[in-house]
Amino acid sequence: MSAERLVVIGGDAGGMTAAAQARRRRRPDDLEIIALERGRYASYSACGIPHWVAGTVDSVDDLISRAPEVTRTKFDIDLRLGHEALGIDLADRSVTVRSGDGAYRLGFDQLVIGTGASPVRPDIPGIDAPGVYGVQTLGDGEAVRAALAAGAARAVVVGGGYIGLEMAEAMVSRGLDVTVVEAAPQPMSTLDPDMGVLVADALVGLGITLHRGEAVTAVATGPDGRAATVVTPEREIPADLVVLGLGVRPETTLARDAGVKIGVTGGIVTDARMRTVSHEGVWAAGDCVQTIDRVALRPIAVALGTHAVKQGRVVGINIGGGYLTFPGVVGTAVTKVCDLEVARTGLREADADRAGLRYVTATIESTTRAGYFPGAAPIVTKLIAERRSGRLLGAQIVGREGAAKRIDVLATALWNEMTVEDIAGLDLSYAPPFAPVWDPVLIAARKAWDAVEADVAALHGAPRSATS
Amino acid sequence: MSAERLVVIGGDAGGMTAAAQARRRRRPDDLEIIALERGRYASYSACGIPHWVAGTVDSVDDLISRAPEVTRTKFDIDLRLGHEALGIDLADRSVTVRSGDGAYRLGFDQLVIGTGASPVRPDIPGIDAPGVYGVQTLGDGEAVRAALAAGAARAVVVGGGYIGLEMAEAMVSRGLDVTVVEAAPQPMSTLDPDMGVLVADALVGLGITLHRGEAVTAVATGPDGRAATVVTPEREIPADLVVLGLGVRPETTLARDAGVKIGVTGGIVTDARMRTVSHEGVWAAGDCVQTIDRVALRPIAVALGTHAVKQGRVVGINIGGGYLTFPGVVGTAVTKVCDLEVARTGLREADADRAGLRYVTATIESTTRAGYFPGAAPIVTKLIAERRSGRLLGAQIVGREGAAKRIDVLATALWNEMTVEDIAGLDLSYAPPFAPVWDPVLIAARKAWDAVEADVAALHGAPRSATS
Repeated sequence: MSAERLVVIGGDAGGMTAAAQARRRRRPDDLEIIALERGRYASYSACGIPHWVAGTVDSVDDLISRAPEVTRTKFDIDLRLGHEALGIDLADRSVTVRSGDGAYRLGFDQLVIGTGASPVRPDIPGIDAPGVYGVQTLGDGEAVRAALAAGAARAVVVGGGYIGLEMAEAMVSRGLDVTVVEAAPQPMSTLDPDMGVLVADALVGLGITLHRGEAVTAVATGPDGRAATVVTPEREIPADLVVLGLGVRPETTLARDAGVKIGVTGGIVTDARMRTVSHEGVWAAGDCVQTIDRVALRPIAVALGTHAVKQGRVVGINIGGGYLTFPGVVGTAVTKVCDLEVARTGLREADADRAGLRYVTATIESTTRAGYFPGAAPIVTKLIAERRSGRLLGAQIVGREGAAKRIDVLATALWNEMTVEDIAGLDLSYAPPFAPVWDPVLIAARKAWDAVEADVAALHGAPRSATS
Repeated sequence: MSAERLVVIGGDAGGMTAAAQARRRRRPDDLEIIALERGRYASYSACGIPHWVAGTVDSVDDLISRAPEVTRTKFDIDLRLGHEALGIDLADRSVTVRSGDGAYRLGFDQLVIGTGASPVRPDIPGIDAPGVYGVQTLGDGEAVRAALAAGAARAVVVGGGYIGLEMAEAMVSRGLDVTVVEAAPQPMSTLDPDMGVLVADALVGLGITLHRGEAVTAVATGPDGRAATVVTPEREIPADLVVLGLGVRPETTLARDAGVKIGVTGGIVTDARMRTVSHEGVWAAGDCVQTIDRVALRPIAVALGTHAVKQGRVVGINIGGGYLTFPGVVGTAVTKVCDLEVARTGLREADADRAGLRYVTATIESTTRAGYFPGAAPIVTKLIAERRSGRLLGAQIVGREGAAKRIDVLATALWNEMTVEDIAGLDLSYAPPFAPVWDPVLIAARKAWDAVEADVAALHGAPRSATS
């Protein structure tokens, strides 16, 4: 007889990490764990879907980090695939579940909400038509692969965010004719436009058709009711399949309906230990939650596997009787579009404006290795630093092989509220195969500090030259 | 007529960066700059020499970051190649110089000592014989290349440090039969032995013969007076050329003879602005100076181009009327031996012992990319964390492509005195082509924190299990 029952809603990164961590600390006779997943897969890498579509990753099994049998037998977690939670009753402490065999109620002592995120769907005609695909679940990936296998030749990606561009690359590499339609002036709007244009240039170089500053107004369907044409004010683009690349938002319908508090970002509000506020024993983790942006000191919702597993670990350790908190994020992200590497952390200029921060910027071009070393690749680094203090506010990198992972140094610097002057003094590793003698990060920090000082001089009214 | 004269001794990274930075801030009619270099090359990448020997870098010109003509005409620096400073007279404020045309005295107002480092030569018979090569200057590189071109087939590297192993790889790649003799239990003694053994295994895998725990006792010469055999207590190793790979020490003969203060590390002592202490207008930069280890809070001498250019910049900006300080180092270094990447920062276990610090360690194996992603390569990460506080003390990485540059995150964490618990929470970039969902740095930090907590529990006497 179990002392307690833990029910987990959502069988991916947040929920299943919580379940596994709780199990590590509490035995089955102390804690029964039931995990509900409405889809056919659990514990998978959603971030790997574009690579699976591209064929870079061969088999769906590669994307599954833990097979259901292992979860069930080794972890003693009652993983129920194809079981969808329809409602949460917090007063009754139960979940209503629908499965192939019908509906049932499932009582819980502890509940973990790990419902993930849903693709943003603009409110336009035809957006829900068959042939319009999100990229959130392995089921989505399967559907796109099936469409490609069925002979789709023309793809339109609506929105040039991370997943959109990764899918665009994947489909180009499969030989499709791919068009990306982006409402903003540049794709990859998680970068400033002056860095986004570098991504745009690379996309065009890959043979992707790119329409910028153009919002999709409708998806027209064909006689079979399937998406057939993407419509903008400028043109009509024939499409055998349409991929949503507008980003995602927290999937919180269940939580909201149950009365769990939802924050300004649309994500579930939790305390530092990932407990939903004001509901004892109800936790949340992953893409469905809201966390804190440590730079702007504002709530933020970031859908990313690395946060989900960290948050799931926090939940599981706390349910398991330990103590751990989630410290928030600085907004680090990275992606690869063919051999173009793109990374960012912290605030964009627009974010800093919104947060009421004043700043200077510096953008430099360098190489990933010593300039003379074979394989030295271009890297453009942009830093945003606070006026006067010189505190780093954000960083963006666009480059080729070896460029992007440098963002982690800047993310660590942001975490520690370093100034760009301090960053310029950092003892970063140097050898010709790995960096120029001045690592691009150091050069960018130097230039940003120069900009801070020039701005201070201008603020105070630069003294007239002694010789004038 | 110049108001002041700056003389720079040593035409490489430290000295020439100082000269160029001073010139940027002071015009020739305000500051005359004369740079003395005893060799035939200036402003070059000494770190590139092994890659030049290997042929990875084709031309010596690739290693020269600024041609002498540019230095002379564009920077208005009177660069004198083949001019060797023989002595410094601080009372007279002059340098005695020898050139092909004879000797002369050169007065100065400001002096920069940038005399670099010399290879460590054990005090054994034959070590100064022809055929024994250091790897400090382009001249050294030329000599080794000439030996290879003349048909050298068997090379012995005495000492398995960075440069020694890079040269061993270079010569193996050129088809030589290469033996490395290392007195310590493992090569790469800037790592702990448990990480050094991974490097040893890789060397053997490359076909390099490795003798560990074996000190060279003599270099025997042949009838022509050239090095012919390397002798250890265990064996005699025939050698067509011998390369010194025992590391370097600050080259401070001139400074010491002039009465400039030398520190416990053998390097020149400077203040934060890189002024030699107690001699107004006498500065030093590069491999010849001593700096501060920010982790152990002890003096340290580190020969590395990246420090040299930073220090030279500090000198030049201060001479130029600006203000900048050098903040010390945490001991970051990186190298590549074929496709093996090796990196370290902070303290080894032995360093921590010497500094009186108690610590725990954690070593983990992971992959550089998501395990399922093509090109995912092994990476072993070791962290050393202070007992109780969990403060990071040091980190070592051995792995394949994409592994080593992760050391920079740990160097930045060290710089900020982060605990391993805090490091485990860092918002590092994640996408399948760049990292597993838990970056190896995060996994290592988690494990190190587990070790800290287990140690604390043991310190306090772990409570008996509730069920026992």
